[in-house]
Amino acid sequence: MFTERVRDLAHVGSVELFTPVPDQSLRFFVDLLGMDVTGRRGDSVYLHAWDDYERFTIKLTASTTSGIGRTYLRAAGPEALQRRVDEIEAAGLGRGWISDELGLGPVFLCGDPDGHEYGLYWETERYRPLERRAPALKNQAAPFPGRGANVRRLDHVNYLAADLAGCSAFLADQLRAQPTEQIMLDSGDVSAIWYHISDKSYDLVYTVDRAGARGRLHHIAVATDTRDDILRAADVMLENGIHIETGPHKHAIQQTFFLYVYEPGGNRVEVANAGARLILAPDWKPIVWTEEERKKGQAWGLKTIETFHTHGTPTMEHYTEPDMAARQKVKSGK
Amino acid sequence: MFTERVRDLAHVGSVELFTPVPDQSLRFFVDLLGMDVTGRRGDSVYLHAWDDYERFTIKLTASTTSGIGRTYLRAAGPEALQRRVDEIEAAGLGRGWISDELGLGPVFLCGDPDGHEYGLYWETERYRPLERRAPALKNQAAPFPGRGANVRRLDHVNYLAADLAGCSAFLADQLRAQPTEQIMLDSGDVSAIWYHISDKSYDLVYTVDRAGARGRLHHIAVATDTRDDILRAADVMLENGIHIETGPHKHAIQQTFFLYVYEPGGNRVEVANAGARLILAPDWKPIVWTEEERKKGQAWGLKTIETFHTHGTPTMEHYTEPDMAARQKVKSGK
Amino acid sequence: MFTERVRDLAHVGSVELFTPVPDQSLRFFVDLLGMDVTGRRGDSVYLHAWDDYERFTIKLTASTTSGIGRTYLRAAGPEALQRRVDEIEAAGLGRGWISDELGLGPVFLCGDPDGHEYGLYWETERYRPLERRAPALKNQAAPFPGRGANVRRLDHVNYLAADLAGCSAFLADQLRAQPTEQIMLDSGDVSAIWYHISDKSYDLVYTVDRAGARGRLHHIAVATDTRDDILRAADVMLENGIHIETGPHKHAIQQTFFLYVYEPGGNRVEVANAGARLILAPDWKPIVWTEEERKKGQAWGLKTIETFHTHGTPTMEHYTEPDMAARQKVKSGK
Amino acid sequence: MFTERVRDLAHVGSVELFTPVPDQSLRFFVDLLGMDVTGRRGDSVYLHAWDDYERFTIKLTASTTSGIGRTYLRAAGPEALQRRVDEIEAAGLGRGWISDELGLGPVFLCGDPDGHEYGLYWETERYRPLERRAPALKNQAAPFPGRGANVRRLDHVNYLAADLAGCSAFLADQLRAQPTEQIMLDSGDVSAIWYHISDKSYDLVYTVDRAGARGRLHHIAVATDTRDDILRAADVMLENGIHIETGPHKHAIQQTFFLYVYEPGGNRVEVANAGARLILAPDWKPIVWTEEERKKGQAWGLKTIETFHTHGTPTMEHYTEPDMAARQKVKSGK
Repeated sequence: MFTERVRDLAHVGSVELFTPVPDQSLRFFVDLLGMDVTGRRGDSVYLHAWDDYERFTIKLTASTTSGIGRTYLRAAGPEALQRRVDEIEAAGLGRGWISDELGLGPVFLCGDPDGHEYGLYWETERYRPLERRAPALKNQAAPFPGRGANVRRLDHVNYLAADLAGCSAFLADQLRAQPTEQIMLDSGDVSAIWYHISDKSYDLVYTVDRAGARGRLHHIAVATDTRDDILRAADVMLENGIHIETGPHKHAIQQTFFLYVYEPGGNRVEVANAGARLILAPDWKPIVWTEEERKKGQAWGLKTIETFHTHGTPTMEHYTEPDMAARQKVKSGK
Repeated sequence: MFTERVRDLAHVGSVELFTPVPDQSLRFFVDLLGMDVTGRRGDSVYLHAWDDYERFTIKLTASTTSGIGRTYLRAAGPEALQRRVDEIEAAGLGRGWISDELGLGPVFLCGDPDGHEYGLYWETERYRPLERRAPALKNQAAPFPGRGANVRRLDHVNYLAADLAGCSAFLADQLRAQPTEQIMLDSGDVSAIWYHISDKSYDLVYTVDRAGARGRLHHIAVATDTRDDILRAADVMLENGIHIETGPHKHAIQQTFFLYVYEPGGNRVEVANAGARLILAPDWKPIVWTEEERKKGQAWGLKTIETFHTHGTPTMEHYTEPDMAARQKVKSGK
Repeated sequence: MFTERVRDLAHVGSVELFTPVPDQSLRFFVDLLGMDVTGRRGDSVYLHAWDDYERFTIKLTASTTSGIGRTYLRAAGPEALQRRVDEIEAAGLGRGWISDELGLGPVFLCGDPDGHEYGLYWETERYRPLERRAPALKNQAAPFPGRGANVRRLDHVNYLAADLAGCSAFLADQLRAQPTEQIMLDSGDVSAIWYHISDKSYDLVYTVDRAGARGRLHHIAVATDTRDDILRAADVMLENGIHIETGPHKHAIQQTFFLYVYEPGGNRVEVANAGARLILAPDWKPIVWTEEERKKGQAWGLKTIETFHTHGTPTMEHYTEPDMAARQKVKSGK
Repeated sequence: MFTERVRDLAHVGSVELFTPVPDQSLRFFVDLLGMDVTGRRGDSVYLHAWDDYERFTIKLTASTTSGIGRTYLRAAGPEALQRRVDEIEAAGLGRGWISDELGLGPVFLCGDPDGHEYGLYWETERYRPLERRAPALKNQAAPFPGRGANVRRLDHVNYLAADLAGCSAFLADQLRAQPTEQIMLDSGDVSAIWYHISDKSYDLVYTVDRAGARGRLHHIAVATDTRDDILRAADVMLENGIHIETGPHKHAIQQTFFLYVYEPGGNRVEVANAGARLILAPDWKPIVWTEEERKKGQAWGLKTIETFHTHGTPTMEHYTEPDMAARQKVKSGK
């Protein structure tokens, strides 16, 4: 039976990334991806992609290890935000509010059962170009950088999860995201699932963590305008000694043209292009890929390389179980 | 004050185009744009772009002249459709239902004050590839054509209107579309306005008809994956004797990379690429372009050519005032 | 010591390819690569790429097996041709003249020690478009096809050879080609060598045949205008069930952006793009790649797949030793 | 009657450009075109494009006005150089030798009747990357910059000339260049002519100077790998306030995809891409374009803008007749 999409969340706003080598990671994002610094606070540097209307796109935080911090999701309005808060609270999954993030108003915290944390918000500070650097065209946020991969915006986040079914239920039931594609093993278990909240074909992805760990990151993805941009990005990465894990090539799933690299901090970053692909159908039936179909490799036949199944951040050598209890403390501190 | 977007309409479904030279127009859409025939009925041929999940993308109808027929808009669900119907009926702008369109269930008719007709629907027949021609990747509707401009889907419709303010109000108030950009003359009048209903930066556009006529078409636009596709499309058009009006170039407004041609029937068709541009902000403030700013021409300085301001279809030689009364008759015939 | 380039050979003219499934191979070259038929004679169909100024680019010949026939090389003039003939005859490597090839005047035959045959010629018939299909721009041979991979011209031929040193000497000493890159094994043996006769970075390539066979083909390559064309070619191949062996990716050697497929007859075909790369230096020092360097894989890290080292045509199941003596018979028949 | 090409000149080596605003021009070439500084001497800065195997590509010289200095042409070898010298001397057009140019050995000077000076040379210093910046691939000169337009190499020079017939004769008779395309006016006069010395479709171009001045520059052109690179270059120029004169668009003549800008010093610079186009035919018959044909505008219909016919450097306000006598003095100073 058809249920109308609840579109209370408009889009992924930004994401926090941890790095043990903050200077090197910063150079990667600024010089090679073409992002700009729009803020600094404590151990964090805030980075902005040129087409992002908000203050920041990636929050890069110095840490003892790599991995992902909070993912910020912008609500479709103040009432939409309240509806999400109410439902999440009703499910007992809320963690309270914070109001001290750069460029954001009150942020409601919650998390999936694996320990990945989300921050939902409505109020946001618009990116303001410094006066001497207003973009030539008034309908874009920042000047076109003309540097490295010139990434346009954050595209999606792909989380590793021990409890994929639980995380998937959280996205569907609490965030009201909709699945567009998934891989179903012969056992009937889903090993990866792609969700969208916008008209993009996916925004948030969960992949089973084969190491059985919780709360890790598979990759974040930044978007370019064309597939040609990604070929150029590969040349840029090659020239600058960045580890290219695989690609450029075209995924069979979602058809994204991809390049996977490890930023100096060890986090996998996908430079991604979806062409003009959108999922506009309100009643899109999720595409289900079988194990057999996945054996064909990527769209044009490239075999998926082993590290794609094993590398996550933090790496297992530096991994410690997320302290779920500690994460609940924010709630009481509201 | 912020009002949450009402997203009852999911996307533009398809559009009917009239042509006095149906065979030549058909060859243009099939051979040069790369579309496929998925139905024929009476004087109409139904054409499908490879990424469209519905039965047809363009309905090409033989007629005494060129111009645009009905624009079909898909609702976000059956209840969403009913909400639109109720509001439109309450405003006295409904024209009743039809149920005899190929591939569509019940269609609710309505129109803007200029005489352009819309058909709102929920039920739709999914495109089914003929068995011998299933696409290689199961997450796309039809096989990639590898022919001509290989257009992916319908992108938007740009209507000419005598009563732009009235049409604009209809989009905002009845269809609940949101404006993303507009041109405001020094007089304070809006001469063109871009609306979106999806996350694309625009779906429906109104431009003042300088001839003062009603119900005419400025252009329909079909989307490609890359800007490079549009350069190739220009080579294809050149080689096949199709009139290129202007482009390829990049619009300042909306930043669309464009190629404008006249299909053999005389209708202007834009082959368009927006890169990865989307308007994801729920509280996007419409960009307002002044006369002074428009004098700069397109993004890279190309001057807008005169015919872009004068050519519409049907051309004024073949133009007759839309019979608004006749259009109301459907209502009683429900 | 520097020796001036002898530029008696202007460019590779065309090449003959054998196929056991001529109808399927023909559809591949016409529908998927975008070539046109410009002649038929006996078991052969002559195919033309749109930017080739001569009558044909590939001669496709029905045969019991796959593989390569004669490679035609155009001389820089009649006297240049005579200089090559004289030197080749002086070395005892000539095989006499033929004058019955479609579109070509007298052709001087010769061959490398492995049994690959070359035909050197000066007189050639220019491609003439049928009147109704003259190209829109008078400085190009044929209309832009707007079909499949839209390949522009033949780019190069890569031969497998048992006697690579002997073949290499033939190219350097008799054809006066110049090497631009090579792979040198730790043993000091060259395992592959790239020669150019034009300003392109390579035109003729020899690779050691690990099966020890003689006269086989590694691949022929056709050129596109952009790397993006090759991504599209990959989509076209995927959609049409053509085996993609590897790619698209960028070679470290020569930096060519490549897609390798097997045409239905089994011959490996590379769809290739070199960007704007040319070797303009008259004193270019051949780049030497070591085994160690080759272990890095292709430019962006793709590992070379095993079949790339083993598949040649004809395949070993259908292979018979070239009858070198028979090939000499043409001489007496002049 | 066919005459074999004399290929004594291998390619255009570099060109000197004058600018009254050297700092601004330098930033243009370095930041926006992606070139690197590889030398400084006196009022000159030497700039290098990443694929150039020689020490420098453009010599940028501070001056009271804009315009072009000497064009350096590399010979195919020492004997080839001597053959050119002998023929030029025999025609009384030599101006002697210099040996004090950065990175070049002895340079033989000569000039066309309009006062544009050429320097022919054989010995040249190879570009050597600083150790910390060796390119990732050993078959390319310098690291890929990943900055601005990332131009690969110098493509061609287009000179304005009062005496086009005389200049054309100098190229054909003394430099032994070959014409590939030309515009012939209804009067029978040639108004522009394209010559090549390499396999590129053109290297040196002469256009009638409608102002009747001598020795001026129409434009220099730098090459990119793809047409997409040029679209990105347009975005870079727009964002950085560089005057875009016309384009991007495709020339009918030579089919080059172009973007014309004025560098801050006033010189017109073309960012150009020819796709994979080469003129490989040794007996290519020059394409002749009529006035009637030129009225169609560029390939896809763009009208040639007026400044393209009038703007040259130095501009007429700063123009002084070249002192041809003074230029002869070098000879005696040998």
